[in-house]
Amino acid sequence: MENFKTKLTRVNTFIFDMDGVLTNGTIWVMHGHDPIRNLNSKDGYAFQLAAKKGYKLFLLSGGNSVAVKEILLRSGFTEVYMAQHDKDACYQKMLTDHNLKQEEILYMGDDLPDHCVLKQVGVATCPADAAPEIKDICIYTSQKKGGEGCARDIVEQVMRARGDWEIANW
Amino acid sequence: MENFKTKLTRVNTFIFDMDGVLTNGTIWVMHGHDPIRNLNSKDGYAFQLAAKKGYKLFLLSGGNSVAVKEILLRSGFTEVYMAQHDKDACYQKMLTDHNLKQEEILYMGDDLPDHCVLKQVGVATCPADAAPEIKDICIYTSQKKGGEGCARDIVEQVMRARGDWEIANW
Amino acid sequence: MENFKTKLTRVNTFIFDMDGVLTNGTIWVMHGHDPIRNLNSKDGYAFQLAAKKGYKLFLLSGGNSVAVKEILLRSGFTEVYMAQHDKDACYQKMLTDHNLKQEEILYMGDDLPDHCVLKQVGVATCPADAAPEIKDICIYTSQKKGGEGCARDIVEQVMRARGDWEIANW
Amino acid sequence: MENFKTKLTRVNTFIFDMDGVLTNGTIWVMHGHDPIRNLNSKDGYAFQLAAKKGYKLFLLSGGNSVAVKEILLRSGFTEVYMAQHDKDACYQKMLTDHNLKQEEILYMGDDLPDHCVLKQVGVATCPADAAPEIKDICIYTSQKKGGEGCARDIVEQVMRARGDWEIANW
Repeated sequence: MENFKTKLTRVNTFIFDMDGVLTNGTIWVMHGHDPIRNLNSKDGYAFQLAAKKGYKLFLLSGGNSVAVKEILLRSGFTEVYMAQHDKDACYQKMLTDHNLKQEEILYMGDDLPDHCVLKQVGVATCPADAAPEIKDICIYTSQKKGGEGCARDIVEQVMRARGDWEIANW
Repeated sequence: MENFKTKLTRVNTFIFDMDGVLTNGTIWVMHGHDPIRNLNSKDGYAFQLAAKKGYKLFLLSGGNSVAVKEILLRSGFTEVYMAQHDKDACYQKMLTDHNLKQEEILYMGDDLPDHCVLKQVGVATCPADAAPEIKDICIYTSQKKGGEGCARDIVEQVMRARGDWEIANW
Repeated sequence: MENFKTKLTRVNTFIFDMDGVLTNGTIWVMHGHDPIRNLNSKDGYAFQLAAKKGYKLFLLSGGNSVAVKEILLRSGFTEVYMAQHDKDACYQKMLTDHNLKQEEILYMGDDLPDHCVLKQVGVATCPADAAPEIKDICIYTSQKKGGEGCARDIVEQVMRARGDWEIANW
Repeated sequence: MENFKTKLTRVNTFIFDMDGVLTNGTIWVMHGHDPIRNLNSKDGYAFQLAAKKGYKLFLLSGGNSVAVKEILLRSGFTEVYMAQHDKDACYQKMLTDHNLKQEEILYMGDDLPDHCVLKQVGVATCPADAAPEIKDICIYTSQKKGGEGCARDIVEQVMRARGDWEIANW
């Protein structure tokens, strides 16, 4: 755990998967419309606090949702990558384009397409209901499921470890 | 508990947070539409009874939903304050505009932006799944989660304590 | 229990409340649209079987949903009464208009507005998450919650008690 | 169990029911629109992997959803049969039209209309919340409920048994 907290203090960048992390993995389908997805207000509040304190926030998803993209950008995300069928290629591009250092990155993902990126980042994390292959390679599994506050949990832990989660900032 | 029930007998005004209290904190996003939010029919029935008996009901939210506003006003809410990024400022204005006495106010909130107002009201309450910092300063944590009847629970308790929850009123 | 099963054999008419019985009590609100409500496919299948075997099915709700009305009428409901703020008055009219005998009626409701009708029908039932005042006056509380199969449970029990739940009918 | 795994190795074709299997059985109704249904992103990812490895995927439903049909066809389903009130007749036609062998077919269904087909296929399976009559005739009941990953569970088990669930394929 000491080791885990030390790693958290290095994190200044969050990359989140969408389906099963920011959402509970459900896609509500409706004829003639883009699918509906669920976001969590406690996650959203943590994103706003983190952005205000200078953390970089990214989304990296194989899915595609204009509605999620809009709301995340309004919540302080730096960039939102949707419809990325090759997550590793996108990740390599992100490292270059945004001058990211791998040890400063925390990634949270829940399923097999996240495997390759999770093996590279400084802090690999997942929700409580991630696929077993993903849990195996993560240093931290949240007690919260996807869409039920797993993002809030990890953002809050990083900000606490770095002294950024203080009542004055709320 | 005696003390808690005594406090309840003084309450004639309810102020509720929206996301995570009247809703379960989920925002369903859909391209080209305002987000969808969930309300609870048992909460709604209690609001109608309370309004009929003369209680004042307010919403104080950092979020914004025209659809929630419309339905709450139809259920007997006196006023609905949306998109209030500074909840304390709005709360001070409410005290003045509506001649409210702090010891007669019950507030229910679930997350950090509610902290400041919860510390001022007569009866500070929260749902079962509130943030730990919020539970710490509340006199009562409902056994019901946000959107699952926590508002009904507290409205019913106040009305019972004051003799207003009687079969003749249903 | 013997008494309960005997009562079930007399039932040829079902009256259901909507919110909290056929739905889980959630109303999803969306600007510019009627609220969205959730129905359960296992309930729906039982309604179709019951209608095919000649049972009468009614909805009696204080709420109002054109979408629920349409789908229930397609599933074999005889009549759907929405927006009935005085449930007792509507119930008395139903008895007359449809020549119903009280001992042949099973009602399922979950909240205070159902109290008055539940006290009159032959078989008073409720979902697992009904209000305590409702559970107190019901002969049967389903182990299923509203929207999670409580209607299927009770329709199936009546049809089994009367020999109408047979593989040949499925 | 040995017997079960051996049976899995023969499966090259999946047939799924829709409501209560790919969805949680909930139909969200909305005035003026087709009902909304929920799909699961982990199921969807497994469908894509299975299709890429040459498995045949079919949907056989008594319900009807254009939105679900479109998304399943994009995920690699061979054919999607909606609004099939006589599932056995449709199943017989599928056997002929697609040259299917019964012992190579795995079916997953949750309610009485699936009974007749489940009795014929090589591997009869159901979600954790299937009707008791369905569980009785299935060789395998998933620990996952409908809409919560029961399809992913069974697709993954078949692909593992046949050596098709390998990191190189993800």
